Amino acid sequence: MTTTPKQEGTTMKRRSFMKNAAVGAAGVAGATVAAPAITQSRQEIVMVTTWPRDFPGLGTGAQRFAQHLTDMTDGRLQVQYFAAGERVGAFDSFDAVASGNAHIYHGAEYYWKGKHPAFSYFASVPFGMIAVESSAWIRWMGGQALWDELGAEFGVKGLMAGNGGVQMGGWFKKEIHSADDFKGLKFRMPGLGGDVLAKLGASPVSLPGGQIYENLVSGAIDGTEWVGPWNDSFLKFYEAAKFYYYPGMHEPGTIVSLGVNKSWWEGLPKADQLIIEAAATVLHELMYSEYNAKNGEFLAKLVNEQGVELRKFSDDVADAFGEAAEEVFEETRAHSDLARRIDDSYRQALRTVGSWLTIADGEYAIQRNRVLGI
Amino acid sequence: MTTTPKQEGTTMKRRSFMKNAAVGAAGVAGATVAAPAITQSRQEIVMVTTWPRDFPGLGTGAQRFAQHLTDMTDGRLQVQYFAAGERVGAFDSFDAVASGNAHIYHGAEYYWKGKHPAFSYFASVPFGMIAVESSAWIRWMGGQALWDELGAEFGVKGLMAGNGGVQMGGWFKKEIHSADDFKGLKFRMPGLGGDVLAKLGASPVSLPGGQIYENLVSGAIDGTEWVGPWNDSFLKFYEAAKFYYYPGMHEPGTIVSLGVNKSWWEGLPKADQLIIEAAATVLHELMYSEYNAKNGEFLAKLVNEQGVELRKFSDDVADAFGEAAEEVFEETRAHSDLARRIDDSYRQALRTVGSWLTIADGEYAIQRNRVLGI
Repeated sequence: MTTTPKQEGTTMKRRSFMKNAAVGAAGVAGATVAAPAITQSRQEIVMVTTWPRDFPGLGTGAQRFAQHLTDMTDGRLQVQYFAAGERVGAFDSFDAVASGNAHIYHGAEYYWKGKHPAFSYFASVPFGMIAVESSAWIRWMGGQALWDELGAEFGVKGLMAGNGGVQMGGWFKKEIHSADDFKGLKFRMPGLGGDVLAKLGASPVSLPGGQIYENLVSGAIDGTEWVGPWNDSFLKFYEAAKFYYYPGMHEPGTIVSLGVNKSWWEGLPKADQLIIEAAATVLHELMYSEYNAKNGEFLAKLVNEQGVELRKFSDDVADAFGEAAEEVFEETRAHSDLARRIDDSYRQALRTVGSWLTIADGEYAIQRNRVLGI
Repeated sequence: MTTTPKQEGTTMKRRSFMKNAAVGAAGVAGATVAAPAITQSRQEIVMVTTWPRDFPGLGTGAQRFAQHLTDMTDGRLQVQYFAAGERVGAFDSFDAVASGNAHIYHGAEYYWKGKHPAFSYFASVPFGMIAVESSAWIRWMGGQALWDELGAEFGVKGLMAGNGGVQMGGWFKKEIHSADDFKGLKFRMPGLGGDVLAKLGASPVSLPGGQIYENLVSGAIDGTEWVGPWNDSFLKFYEAAKFYYYPGMHEPGTIVSLGVNKSWWEGLPKADQLIIEAAATVLHELMYSEYNAKNGEFLAKLVNEQGVELRKFSDDVADAFGEAAEEVFEETRAHSDLARRIDDSYRQALRTVGSWLTIADGEYAIQRNRVLGI
């Protein structure tokens, strides 16, 4: 995507915004004795994102964060929000923040795995953590410190700021009884998930969201994954593919996050750092709970109103995903000492917290749902 | 618990603190041109809690909130924190806030079920919601509006501010093969859980935490529940009872929360309301993730270092819990129109979100743990 002339005009000179903002703010504060709510650190914050404007969940969540941060500070921290393509292209967000052309991006860290493969651990990896496991690792088991170490190599600090929950495995025109049924299947699944499908004999296809439906209807593809019941419903895949498979082992709870220019961050007053972190945590909690609420509502509608048939992947499909994921981990570990330490920490936390959640939330929900008929 | 003379001396006159704080703050702001970070709404906030000082998770989380709110506002909102008994007794916290003798309490709403039985839905009910289901209901499916309606009857506004996750079912000296094995068992489980055990023929006993161990060792009781691996480890129940049962159907993810004096809340600037809400959400996220991290770590230690034997309750024990829970719901619904509407909303959300999470986080974790050997 390209930057329009109008937006180009608002672009600040690289690295220059930090000092200007501080100087300007001091002047404002000194001149406003009659309005004591103004403090010494009023400033504008440029925020870019990897999401289209108003994209449900991810885009609307990021937009909510921008407004929230402004409102929490009574306008003292004024966020200028730019959706993908409005200031920089979606995948230029990281460089924009690293270079100082923007203060903050909102995105998913696996977009930057070309810069360092370990970034994927701070978004999602196949057979990786679900949302609540990620929270335990990032906040209490060393995850944030490793993320900071990784980000510091690029001048960016990451903050957890959303999660979409476990994805669905996708929409299929025919039932998948075993891993063999993937052979010859033309299936839309980008990235690593697509690599896994290729190992099963499928032909993975990468298509942007707006082109999936027409390819599914025309028969150019035999199936597709997207996100989950809420986001998927709007694209009406059920009109062309009735079998809706779970679980989405390729993306079991993607962390979405803020990336903050590190030197700007370190120059902020402690109170402002805490407010930005708190706003990020609110976004995390609101986004994850919104996905759970809306996925529940739209799953019921898909089944009851659209005749969608829910199906569960068989064990051998899961086994194949597991093998492919292991290969990816090995490649990542070989990259660097930091990548190996991140993988070690991630695996240890996954095993520790996963064991607990299995007998806690997991076994509890199974018993409750059996007794209540859910 | 009683208030000590020293603490009594700090008690402010009921209802008087709100106006005094506002007047004092305006004076401060007008006089501090040289320190423009001061705004017009500096004030002290009196916070009482239902937890002993430094109680791991619940107490330390509440203390963290008090410091966090102060730090987020650079001292403008200055929280004076009182653990249980330091200003008022634990179970007087609600009345202290409702009457204006304190601004905020931190506790669990089921403590106030004597005032209105529907308060339990905003903490935990047997066979109720797990933490992420509660978040979806409270934040996106009408839960907060119903909570506000209930709280308004008493002049208190509730805010979600923590969750301990699914509890363990408890420590037993002998294995429980079926519901029949509860007959004649002297078991420490207070409240509704104890009522359920009584229906199974057990003799429920209520004991404070500090007296459980000696009763378990002496044989005065045959078993006990407490919280989960983290909190339980410190009380060393494993020395006297080796079988540790899951899941804790009596408390499947207790919401802990702030109760805020409603008229004070409504007089706050919008930005301060947002900051307090954000600090509450940070506490929620940090506490729930801390319980998951620590429960995972301590569960492994209990099994590997203390020889604790994990056991799962059989289906007929779960069935008995389910029947008893249903009776409680019926009693609550009969109380009032508001109680019936809260129960309706809760059940609808539980079914909708529970169905989604079963095929998302639930089935995913089962497959992942099978493939990875967790």
